Amino acid sequence: MRLATLTSGGDCPGLNAVIRAIVRTASNEFGDTVVGYEDGWVGLMEDRRRDLYDDATIDRILLRGGTVLGTGRLHPDKFKAGLDTIKSNLEDAGVDALIAIGGEGTLKGAKWLADNGIPVIGVPKTIDNDVNATDYTFGFDTAVSVATDAIDRLHTTAESHNRILIVEVMGRHVGWIALHAGMAGGAHYTVIPEAPFDVADICKAMERRFQMGEKYGIICVAEGALPKAGTMNFGEGQEDEFGHKTFNGIGQVIGDEIKNRTGYDVRTTVLGHIQRGGTPTAYDRILATRYGVQAARAAHEGLSNKCVALRGEDIKLVDLADAVGELKTVPTHRYENAQALFG
Amino acid sequence: MRLATLTSGGDCPGLNAVIRAIVRTASNEFGDTVVGYEDGWVGLMEDRRRDLYDDATIDRILLRGGTVLGTGRLHPDKFKAGLDTIKSNLEDAGVDALIAIGGEGTLKGAKWLADNGIPVIGVPKTIDNDVNATDYTFGFDTAVSVATDAIDRLHTTAESHNRILIVEVMGRHVGWIALHAGMAGGAHYTVIPEAPFDVADICKAMERRFQMGEKYGIICVAEGALPKAGTMNFGEGQEDEFGHKTFNGIGQVIGDEIKNRTGYDVRTTVLGHIQRGGTPTAYDRILATRYGVQAARAAHEGLSNKCVALRGEDIKLVDLADAVGELKTVPTHRYENAQALFG
Amino acid sequence: MRLATLTSGGDCPGLNAVIRAIVRTASNEFGDTVVGYEDGWVGLMEDRRRDLYDDATIDRILLRGGTVLGTGRLHPDKFKAGLDTIKSNLEDAGVDALIAIGGEGTLKGAKWLADNGIPVIGVPKTIDNDVNATDYTFGFDTAVSVATDAIDRLHTTAESHNRILIVEVMGRHVGWIALHAGMAGGAHYTVIPEAPFDVADICKAMERRFQMGEKYGIICVAEGALPKAGTMNFGEGQEDEFGHKTFNGIGQVIGDEIKNRTGYDVRTTVLGHIQRGGTPTAYDRILATRYGVQAARAAHEGLSNKCVALRGEDIKLVDLADAVGELKTVPTHRYENAQALFG
Amino acid sequence: MRLATLTSGGDCPGLNAVIRAIVRTASNEFGDTVVGYEDGWVGLMEDRRRDLYDDATIDRILLRGGTVLGTGRLHPDKFKAGLDTIKSNLEDAGVDALIAIGGEGTLKGAKWLADNGIPVIGVPKTIDNDVNATDYTFGFDTAVSVATDAIDRLHTTAESHNRILIVEVMGRHVGWIALHAGMAGGAHYTVIPEAPFDVADICKAMERRFQMGEKYGIICVAEGALPKAGTMNFGEGQEDEFGHKTFNGIGQVIGDEIKNRTGYDVRTTVLGHIQRGGTPTAYDRILATRYGVQAARAAHEGLSNKCVALRGEDIKLVDLADAVGELKTVPTHRYENAQALFG
Repeated sequence: MRLATLTSGGDCPGLNAVIRAIVRTASNEFGDTVVGYEDGWVGLMEDRRRDLYDDATIDRILLRGGTVLGTGRLHPDKFKAGLDTIKSNLEDAGVDALIAIGGEGTLKGAKWLADNGIPVIGVPKTIDNDVNATDYTFGFDTAVSVATDAIDRLHTTAESHNRILIVEVMGRHVGWIALHAGMAGGAHYTVIPEAPFDVADICKAMERRFQMGEKYGIICVAEGALPKAGTMNFGEGQEDEFGHKTFNGIGQVIGDEIKNRTGYDVRTTVLGHIQRGGTPTAYDRILATRYGVQAARAAHEGLSNKCVALRGEDIKLVDLADAVGELKTVPTHRYENAQALFG
Repeated sequence: MRLATLTSGGDCPGLNAVIRAIVRTASNEFGDTVVGYEDGWVGLMEDRRRDLYDDATIDRILLRGGTVLGTGRLHPDKFKAGLDTIKSNLEDAGVDALIAIGGEGTLKGAKWLADNGIPVIGVPKTIDNDVNATDYTFGFDTAVSVATDAIDRLHTTAESHNRILIVEVMGRHVGWIALHAGMAGGAHYTVIPEAPFDVADICKAMERRFQMGEKYGIICVAEGALPKAGTMNFGEGQEDEFGHKTFNGIGQVIGDEIKNRTGYDVRTTVLGHIQRGGTPTAYDRILATRYGVQAARAAHEGLSNKCVALRGEDIKLVDLADAVGELKTVPTHRYENAQALFG
Repeated sequence: MRLATLTSGGDCPGLNAVIRAIVRTASNEFGDTVVGYEDGWVGLMEDRRRDLYDDATIDRILLRGGTVLGTGRLHPDKFKAGLDTIKSNLEDAGVDALIAIGGEGTLKGAKWLADNGIPVIGVPKTIDNDVNATDYTFGFDTAVSVATDAIDRLHTTAESHNRILIVEVMGRHVGWIALHAGMAGGAHYTVIPEAPFDVADICKAMERRFQMGEKYGIICVAEGALPKAGTMNFGEGQEDEFGHKTFNGIGQVIGDEIKNRTGYDVRTTVLGHIQRGGTPTAYDRILATRYGVQAARAAHEGLSNKCVALRGEDIKLVDLADAVGELKTVPTHRYENAQALFG
Repeated sequence: MRLATLTSGGDCPGLNAVIRAIVRTASNEFGDTVVGYEDGWVGLMEDRRRDLYDDATIDRILLRGGTVLGTGRLHPDKFKAGLDTIKSNLEDAGVDALIAIGGEGTLKGAKWLADNGIPVIGVPKTIDNDVNATDYTFGFDTAVSVATDAIDRLHTTAESHNRILIVEVMGRHVGWIALHAGMAGGAHYTVIPEAPFDVADICKAMERRFQMGEKYGIICVAEGALPKAGTMNFGEGQEDEFGHKTFNGIGQVIGDEIKNRTGYDVRTTVLGHIQRGGTPTAYDRILATRYGVQAARAAHEGLSNKCVALRGEDIKLVDLADAVGELKTVPTHRYENAQALFG
């Protein structure tokens, strides 16, 4: 048999581990060959591909961040208009089944291809951990680790200077990274999109710390944090492609407001791209590898329209339809648990 | 209310995160006070305790490995003979409920106290990940990360010298650390206690690598690895306190045998104690913190004979009886998955 | 004898290692006691001090970033006006000699006190590595390591997305961090304050990469980078307290300009405070510790107006006057060496 | 012009950074080409070589430990007997100058070739830091960092269990790694080959700690540590190829003796190969890169019989004869400085 794979959407630590596991499993277990399309759906449309051999080169990508196949974004309309091209390209390459690794958009595309007769297995990918149907996605642990390491470093600076430090982490629509990094880093307040904030509450928490003799505070803010209606007026914000309202530089905005209201020395750090690159953590390498093994097996067995998923300790196959519904947001009780630790 | 806590058994990254979360939750949510007993059950017997305040000192232990309360081991017979002492010590200290943090032995002790009328909540702790009733235990991710980091380093040395390197990791009765570190580190063979090994198989795998042009190999061996009956004669081994047979220095033994059989240059590294110390990973801090929050709440609510546990994405309360049964070993299909990646 | 110490100016990984080494050496070698003033010169003026004992608490600060004594800034005029207060505070505390740990401003203050009859030894501190008279300062290696780790992570993201990533690192007046992090991180261009840049050169370097088949680029920019006169018009900039012209957000400015001129996808990351906090590297702990040992010995021996300094493999004592002259900038040949590696 | 390079002796983090810098500088600055011989002198004798292009592949080895050229050991007699072969191989390959990267043995070989008319530049390499004529060698900082990280982890375990932990680090003839890792890791005693130890002194230091209320100790032991004559009888030891006496497993021996004499719980960890592999620290990448740039320039300029060396802040060229004399041992005053911090 001949399998194909591609990576689509934003890059994410662990993509290469999935690719490696697919190639290894295909070759080791079944003697199948694997072809990789470059730059996601774009490369599939343009028939840019290369054979992936089970050799030393593929073995060593395990540690590498990013994706050796490259990634890209293709407008859904163009994608759908290209069905015939995709079909003939796959046929020309002798591909029996496709493994698509990507986020929600990618998995929707995968589902649409499967619905149109192409055997496809999906592998969920998002550092934001917002894909339903799976407990966790690879890349998320690495992002949380990088953010936690940054928060660890900020503690001592904030403390030495009697300062409040705001660290803005990734998470435009969901607060998983902020929730986990805030908890792991011992932040004294955490703000997530799912729970609109009132700066007055944050100020109160900081003031309580200073009254108790502490001299600094760390606040972890998801980039998609939103003010509670009527509590703060800082302009209109932007609307993103999902119709969500966002505010660029929300960390800085919150910092300025705290400074104005309390007079404390407040500084903001925006972590940015370092959260999504680099060597994956052991956790992410294992999860990504297990996904890859399972996806290769499912593809080899002729399954389609399925997605690999972590459920408890096991990797399961779920329907692609279940993976591409609503975004998985932070449940209220998880945020309340975190609040027990603030201050 | 007044809660007590103690840490017992081997140390483990994340113990301090549990302690901190207990103190924080007790204080923040309920206004409860917390007392800590030193050196595990020993301190409880000898009434060595100190108040744990929700202050800067407790806040900063989040990052610290080990346990600020110290730990110790007490023979079960002495423990049981001391029931009256324990009861009166807890009464003297005004303790309403006890949170015992420890491995299987500790949880058995906790269950026995609960059966004898003392309100007790257990928090499972083992870097070996061998406690049933929970998906994962804190400390395990840190141990796997340390071992993976070591394996990453060994790759380049092995490769530069055309050498086989054996890395012996922790895991006397179960192979979870070896399985995960081997998978994350891209080991070319992994040996776990659950699947007795045949050196001939390992040699064959290494020889296949060298024939394919690779010039080195990494083998990850759990310290509790056992030879398949009749495949190797290297003495009688030792019997440990559970009646399990073990062989000290099994990594070296395997290495010597491979060298003898194949003539390759083989070296062995025993990772040892560095796997169990130091700053916990973000993952372990989060799991430990969530355990602590839940344990404090359960204790405050008057529950007893329960143990906190991770199930999928949620922290649940399970019966202590369910946590202290059989050791959780690596299932056959997990080891087979790993084998798909060997070579 | 009785020594005093304080930390002043911006925080820096290794400050605690110096404090620990001073206390240890004073106690172990001479039986001297040590008092620590809080928040730098401010605490000395306000007589806020505490005894530093050679015990477990002081021992464990070795790993900790920031400074357990706190730090602060005091205007030189206020400082000079306070000479009598300082003298009487030191006398009241029974202090025989003072060890002042800080950057250029602090060392100037130290010199002034020494010139006015107070025995003072200086310990140079700057993550920017811009103090003359010493080869390296502690904190610099940690800052470079953090920045290098960030650049390592950015490579894979940039590569996966065919993108140019600009990373803005610390260095308002000197380019040491940018030079070293750029070299260690394999940046494809590095911009430092000492060598005014022409965006046209940077664009040319990037274009050459893309023509050669590479699909991404990493540019390391010191926050104090300045455009070559006449090459770029982006406003007036700000003048800092030293009369230097600086431009806030220079990384973003350069990024926007490259994007405009070349059409490439360019993103900017500002590393910010994470470069100055957290656990010091082994290198910085060793340098800081050796400084502390030497400073305690010099103070005990009754020396004054001296500063510890690294020269080759040795810690020497130099005149404070030699440490507080010009800033140590990156020599032209060092930047030219780095240029050999661009592209 | 055409340069050649090879790496010889034990592997060391930073070797690839040197290779990359040589290729980059040769290509960027001079338009020179570079050929790499495999497995050190062996490959030069056997004419196993490959062209090293200034492309993406060479660029990405900066982060990688080990050496992409492989390394090997060749007996000096065979080496010398092969002069004609070497000459004709270099001539056939059109090589104008050779850059040999290696430890003392390699540099001796390089000197001998240069003395016999082949233009050779040496690059010193040793994680032990025992090469004279240079302040530091690359690889050393990485080894110290790995060992320090391990000691950091051991502190919390030792403390939680009231235990003495011995960590045996590399250093068969010199104690640089032990000295620096012990100092950076806050070890409570450090044993180096240059200062024969008396176990009675170590026991005394540990007992003083326990008397002062501390409950644990960390002892850092170089693998080449030797007992003071007459203080301990533990067999004859082995004689290595330099005629030095060494004792395998000296850490374990010291641990057993301390346990016997004091009754404390003592455990030993041997760090082994993880100290010499893996991604180099930023410091080592910079030093290695600067060496490579300078070596390529020297080779291009037609210099020979020279070795690159770090002197203070500068890379200098020294005579190979000065690099291959005596081993650089830890000076007495450096060990005495460390002693000020024991306990």
